[in-house]
Amino acid sequence: MKADYRSMWRELGLDLEAHDALLQGLGTAYRDVVAGQKNRPAAMAYLDFVMSEVHGLRIKELLDAKASGRKVIGAFCVFVPEEIVLAADAILVGLCTGADFALEEVEKILPRNTCSLIKSAFGFKLSKVCPYLEAADMVVGENTCDGKKKAYEQFKHLTPNLYVMDLPQQKTASGRQLLAQEFRRFLKVVEELCGVEITAERLRRGIELVNAKRVALSRLARLRAADPVPISGLDALLINQVAFYDDPRRFTDAVNKLCDELEERVGSQAGVFPTVTPRILLSGCPMAVPNWKIYDLVERAGAVIVGEESCVGERGWRNLTKADGATLDELLEAVIDRYFAVDCAVFTPNAEREQHVKEMYQEYRADGVIHYSLQFCQPYIIESMPMEQRLQDQGLNFLRIETDYSGEDVGQLQTRIEAFIEIIS
Amino acid sequence: MKADYRSMWRELGLDLEAHDALLQGLGTAYRDVVAGQKNRPAAMAYLDFVMSEVHGLRIKELLDAKASGRKVIGAFCVFVPEEIVLAADAILVGLCTGADFALEEVEKILPRNTCSLIKSAFGFKLSKVCPYLEAADMVVGENTCDGKKKAYEQFKHLTPNLYVMDLPQQKTASGRQLLAQEFRRFLKVVEELCGVEITAERLRRGIELVNAKRVALSRLARLRAADPVPISGLDALLINQVAFYDDPRRFTDAVNKLCDELEERVGSQAGVFPTVTPRILLSGCPMAVPNWKIYDLVERAGAVIVGEESCVGERGWRNLTKADGATLDELLEAVIDRYFAVDCAVFTPNAEREQHVKEMYQEYRADGVIHYSLQFCQPYIIESMPMEQRLQDQGLNFLRIETDYSGEDVGQLQTRIEAFIEIIS
Repeated sequence: MKADYRSMWRELGLDLEAHDALLQGLGTAYRDVVAGQKNRPAAMAYLDFVMSEVHGLRIKELLDAKASGRKVIGAFCVFVPEEIVLAADAILVGLCTGADFALEEVEKILPRNTCSLIKSAFGFKLSKVCPYLEAADMVVGENTCDGKKKAYEQFKHLTPNLYVMDLPQQKTASGRQLLAQEFRRFLKVVEELCGVEITAERLRRGIELVNAKRVALSRLARLRAADPVPISGLDALLINQVAFYDDPRRFTDAVNKLCDELEERVGSQAGVFPTVTPRILLSGCPMAVPNWKIYDLVERAGAVIVGEESCVGERGWRNLTKADGATLDELLEAVIDRYFAVDCAVFTPNAEREQHVKEMYQEYRADGVIHYSLQFCQPYIIESMPMEQRLQDQGLNFLRIETDYSGEDVGQLQTRIEAFIEIIS
Repeated sequence: MKADYRSMWRELGLDLEAHDALLQGLGTAYRDVVAGQKNRPAAMAYLDFVMSEVHGLRIKELLDAKASGRKVIGAFCVFVPEEIVLAADAILVGLCTGADFALEEVEKILPRNTCSLIKSAFGFKLSKVCPYLEAADMVVGENTCDGKKKAYEQFKHLTPNLYVMDLPQQKTASGRQLLAQEFRRFLKVVEELCGVEITAERLRRGIELVNAKRVALSRLARLRAADPVPISGLDALLINQVAFYDDPRRFTDAVNKLCDELEERVGSQAGVFPTVTPRILLSGCPMAVPNWKIYDLVERAGAVIVGEESCVGERGWRNLTKADGATLDELLEAVIDRYFAVDCAVFTPNAEREQHVKEMYQEYRADGVIHYSLQFCQPYIIESMPMEQRLQDQGLNFLRIETDYSGEDVGQLQTRIEAFIEIIS
């Protein structure tokens, strides 16, 4: 980090000592895991810069925006419609959930058998080390899984500006109605928070801005179908992670610039790994910064991850929102349709997801799927068992992994991953 | 069991060998745990008879009813509206979920980190040892927790006559609308299954029948407020468990007869345990037959359980359904209102439940609460942590237990329960 942001962090209410420790850990992990990779595209320099300033310049930007009257909304999940947030000139940021922090304190509030992502959110809050959370004017929780849904009851005591958005469990007419009502309620709340009336024109602009980001991420993903693959899975994951923090317009431009470079690589058959590298599709739970554990293990073991069927990945951006509605209502219906199509495992049934895994397997020419679940994430873990069975029956290679944010199982995971790569090579 | 039911079981498709083993285990457990208690009310003889014929005479009754054209509907949860089932002259039965069976086979389909209740349902199905499940014309699953919701996707393959009922997660207008739509859909399905048009008169009769059962169980519960307590917690639990299997009219009569006897006991200050016995309120997850583990431990350790804030207990029957509607629609709205008030931990927030625990604590003159969660039941476990904190702050004694259906932790539980009884004595 170039500038001295200590007074900014202090004013935000961060615990400076704990935050220093966090940044130091993050910096070391970044150097060891991300920056140490070979053959990185030159355009990744932008991502390196963003990451180096993720608690610095980006936070200053948010605070400057707040000073100019804009609002910051924090979210934990891809079900929070960024289109509506942007329509009100507010800024949507993903909140810190990718590392263990203050685990002992967290486990006084939440059961030990809670997934790392939820515990992490609590750890960052209790330790006062997430500047995004502290900068947010409103924090949106969503009733996806049991863990989050019930944990938000507790989180509300720590974060009084928590707003809970309900979600359906089935893709029925009743389910869609519930989502529609919740999105309409969210739109009103955002309007009130921002003192803005969301018009059709504003919502269309919001839709176009988010769609542009999705199109850029989609362009990046398609380039990974090439063999040799022009970018590591780890760098691609990082880009998908930064998508939740960065200014959407600037980020979209940066991804498109990166794609220009990757297209040249593909054209000249230049890859980040040799052609013979086994190709793996990652499927399952989201991975927030700095959760790079599986990617690091896989790519150090001589394989490459060519796609992520994950919220931090294709599940998060593959569907566009139709922007051709004439009225606010038509556009809002398009937003509802778009999110109602997200194939998260909290829905039952959720057959589209397995179909999508198969499509990605073909499209990215994968040799195997690694299904990644956070421990105790019942929706993804339960869904993964029949998926494994059926995909294996169809001849696809499939490895199920359950893990958390600790390093305790790295040795065991490495052994399993190396054995899997051996099989699919 | 008096008669020879083997041909009946064979025709139902049960695995006779596995079923013999189940019955033998159940019989031994019943003799050791339930029948071995002292000072049992004479009227418990009815319950002993019902339990001795739970896979015999009762199943024969169901099959006779089926032969006469009635339908049998199986359920796993108190959210399935018995009023509607009875209105169509069908029979609602609770399905077997109280013991481990074929665990190794189950854990090929479901994660090990799934609660015992869900695994048990699968175990009984895979082993073909639950005559209720095999006799059911329709099995109703409900989207309560993540575990059940996602497990039903698998259960559907084992049980093609599974019907899934969606449930809301919040007690909002949207949530009630979703429940209403689901109950209307269920009514139609039951009508179709039974070839019956449910009229206002029929539904009112169904409501009155279920209400009578609830009133009888409520009467029994109130009698347990007496000191000395006229019936053991274990016998009261057994009655609450049998409520899910037995013919509702006959069961209601039997409970009322038992209450007559208990009133005499209370009048003459005759108790099942001495006056000095520490009194415990049980709160949390449901306990299906033969899950008597905690009750057995508590009452052998010299305390008595005086109430159960549980689905198999007060959460299951405390709210009555208003029967004074004139039209089918008014009556159905009353049914919806009634179930929408159930304070299950799958709802968020669910503050009514904590309030109810406090009320029961006062009403039944409890000296402590034992909060019982099945391992990996995230809704109840997460909810219990702040509840423990707040109730302890208000001076209530509170012990949180997480367990499963195995006997592995009995020694450890015994130590913790004895220490708790020591504290509250």
